[in-house]
Amino acid sequence: MAESKTMISINNILDFEQRYRATFINSLSGFKSVNLIGSKDRYNNENLAIFSSVVHIGATPPLIGLIVRPDSVDRHTLTNILTTQSYTLNHINDNIFNKAHQTSARYPKEESEFEAVGLTPEYKNECFAPFVKESNVQIEMEFKEKVDLKINGTSLVIGQIKSIHLPLKAIQEDGFIDLEQLNTITCTGLDSYHKTQRINRLSYAKPNQNLKMIK
Amino acid sequence: MAESKTMISINNILDFEQRYRATFINSLSGFKSVNLIGSKDRYNNENLAIFSSVVHIGATPPLIGLIVRPDSVDRHTLTNILTTQSYTLNHINDNIFNKAHQTSARYPKEESEFEAVGLTPEYKNECFAPFVKESNVQIEMEFKEKVDLKINGTSLVIGQIKSIHLPLKAIQEDGFIDLEQLNTITCTGLDSYHKTQRINRLSYAKPNQNLKMIK
Repeated sequence: MAESKTMISINNILDFEQRYRATFINSLSGFKSVNLIGSKDRYNNENLAIFSSVVHIGATPPLIGLIVRPDSVDRHTLTNILTTQSYTLNHINDNIFNKAHQTSARYPKEESEFEAVGLTPEYKNECFAPFVKESNVQIEMEFKEKVDLKINGTSLVIGQIKSIHLPLKAIQEDGFIDLEQLNTITCTGLDSYHKTQRINRLSYAKPNQNLKMIK
Repeated sequence: MAESKTMISINNILDFEQRYRATFINSLSGFKSVNLIGSKDRYNNENLAIFSSVVHIGATPPLIGLIVRPDSVDRHTLTNILTTQSYTLNHINDNIFNKAHQTSARYPKEESEFEAVGLTPEYKNECFAPFVKESNVQIEMEFKEKVDLKINGTSLVIGQIKSIHLPLKAIQEDGFIDLEQLNTITCTGLDSYHKTQRINRLSYAKPNQNLKMIK
């Protein structure tokens, strides 16, 4: 049974106080992937920033997108990605979500967020950018394309996966990764962090055929 | 303590069997927003399709993006959006997730997925496209821009929010929407659905200042 709803119009939304509106609209896009992005400038200054705007672009080739705002702390990350082509995506788990959130503070460019919040940079596989050691799913990315969205001045940054580092036991027989087993968490809005509990996996849907639960 | 990891290289990924690779890479982008998109063609044929590629683009104006594949069942949705400019985003809750998943079957264009899976189209507020009555968060969207991503032939479809329909009790004092109270769920990969449990909301981060829990 659906609950009784109230309508909020675009005029109501535009009348909201700015921070209230940002909190409200950011909640509407639902549960989000939340990652730490590791990068480095040419002078080896490390940078770490939390992003909740990661989106799957395609599997062949394996591409992941990211919405970046030009007017925020995202800027150091974007500059590093564009100048070095290298960055890492690191899943956030429930042991590090508060340190991850703290990376959104406006630290000066020469200060490493790794050090400021107490996370450990990890270098491997000839990747220029640092991974987050405390993360259970680390993805090495190579910058491919920046698509500027004129409608509001943000950009879609597309990168290709170069390597992935994770515990093998979390990969199921059909390629599905059990992120709950790896303690990956999700977020809503600008500041709310959530654990998850699997309801079910469902079989590939075909017309006039009942769905089966997988496992 | 981070777990012991194995590296999977881009060459390993490209060697994966195609469906295994799709399942694997779709899992990597983490927990995702999962929505039903309601639309209609000019002849009033209703369409309903599940999407897990929704991404927040901005709050002022309120914009939501969507990655659409040209070669899939997404196509009816895209055609309807482009010809009518109107569509709805409807959050999925744990009462309807199996019906929502079933909309991904390849029904013929003249068959309504609403009827095929047993969900109820709802019309209100002079919106041309149907909402999903059983959804607790309904968002009326107006098409703004399609950005073609040449890198793999997908498109980013950007729309502006025109109205929102939800129970007022779920909106907190600062504009945050408590999606758990509304039973909105999240998904991973192509077919796994999850409930959530809030860990915490955290205060706005500033350098050298401890985070506080909100509520």
